[in-house]
Amino acid sequence: MRLAVCQTSSCTGDKAKNIAKIRAIARTAASWEASLLVMPELFLTGYNLGSRLKDLAEPSDGPSLRAIGVIAREEGCAIAVGFPELAGGELYNSSALFDAEGNLAAVYRKIHMFGPDEKGLFVPGKELVVTRIGDRTIGMAICYDIEFPEMARELKRRGAEIIIVPTANMAPYHEVPTTFIRARSLENGVFVAYANLCGTEGNLEYTGLSAITGPDGIDLARAGPRGEALLLAELPYPRPNDCFSTQIEDVQLPLDR
Amino acid sequence: MRLAVCQTSSCTGDKAKNIAKIRAIARTAASWEASLLVMPELFLTGYNLGSRLKDLAEPSDGPSLRAIGVIAREEGCAIAVGFPELAGGELYNSSALFDAEGNLAAVYRKIHMFGPDEKGLFVPGKELVVTRIGDRTIGMAICYDIEFPEMARELKRRGAEIIIVPTANMAPYHEVPTTFIRARSLENGVFVAYANLCGTEGNLEYTGLSAITGPDGIDLARAGPRGEALLLAELPYPRPNDCFSTQIEDVQLPLDR
Repeated sequence: MRLAVCQTSSCTGDKAKNIAKIRAIARTAASWEASLLVMPELFLTGYNLGSRLKDLAEPSDGPSLRAIGVIAREEGCAIAVGFPELAGGELYNSSALFDAEGNLAAVYRKIHMFGPDEKGLFVPGKELVVTRIGDRTIGMAICYDIEFPEMARELKRRGAEIIIVPTANMAPYHEVPTTFIRARSLENGVFVAYANLCGTEGNLEYTGLSAITGPDGIDLARAGPRGEALLLAELPYPRPNDCFSTQIEDVQLPLDR
Repeated sequence: MRLAVCQTSSCTGDKAKNIAKIRAIARTAASWEASLLVMPELFLTGYNLGSRLKDLAEPSDGPSLRAIGVIAREEGCAIAVGFPELAGGELYNSSALFDAEGNLAAVYRKIHMFGPDEKGLFVPGKELVVTRIGDRTIGMAICYDIEFPEMARELKRRGAEIIIVPTANMAPYHEVPTTFIRARSLENGVFVAYANLCGTEGNLEYTGLSAITGPDGIDLARAGPRGEALLLAELPYPRPNDCFSTQIEDVQLPLDR
């Protein structure tokens, strides 16, 4: 399987422009025969919009999402993208995953809310999502979720081979994209695809450093801290589990079980 | 608080020589006013001894351990050191922690056994250990333990500010000392003191890269992959929790609670 991760900036508040950007990027990824493209968190609208996000939000079968499904089908490449989801009158920080036939394979609603702004804007999700794309099992996370080892561990337990992480990681949290992404890969023996924003958006400066990491905890591809990048990597067939240091079967905690 | 971490090799099977080495190292650490010195896993005897470890094992009040307590008192520096512990006829892979008055503050028995050799030799420990040294709360782990985020998390929940990790990490697991040690620090907001062996011992080649990492996930001090090193670092007073990205209070899993 070939995987594409896009580090870019979103045109704040301009869904049409961002959908056009997805089309252009998906076309490039598909030309390299990528099976899955991961875009950043809330890429459809931009991240730093405050309460305007509610006005721009759509249900997962809204017009913008349907347009992205069409791109996935036409380019023959699965696409994961962050968007503000309106459901039952509530706002979620969600990620939609379309398969290469353009079907909505899954929607994941971010569980861990970062800081007072997100806590004020969004209702946290309550469900972990693991789904199949092609011959691989995909676990879904968004940004701050991946800082908590408990979540990647549970996705692994549910069969995830690749964890996809649309993100909007900003300064001064420069250690997150390197340290945490490598650790989640290594401690669970999974690939992680981490797609961050770059540049500035209002008062936020994103840290870039998007990456695709392997189950040995080593970068297969890594973007710089600034500037746009499209990472394209062939995922090697997973090596036998005993090549890795950490064996999930050896977990001993909680001790009272 | 000033902390010392020693990366060195052990004289395989020669407890007297290793005790002499501890004395010399503790003297150097104390001259820099270090309050705590961390030595590698099974440093008292060497790590790669197979079943000979049982012949060399001692209870935690045995003559070698008492001698190390005397060094701690005479040098005025707390000392943590790995040793094969005999208790109730069973062999444990343990770490003794003496305070600066030479009292045995705690013994921790390694919980996570690495590979078939350790699983065949040792009985796994069943208890987490958190104890006070000076004005800091110390959590204890040994080597493979630190690869499991569950354990560092639970030590943090029990109040640990510094996690000390005597270790014997060998090739080809070169990512463990960097990726995992930084991740455990960053995701829990704790210092980690990771003391590895270096050089070769029989068929094993240790990876070095001993370190003291800060609660921001950044190295305060880092040894190279080969050769002896004594790391001495002043632990800054912990910064306010809101300087860090990951907030323990935000953990949401398990979701069924």
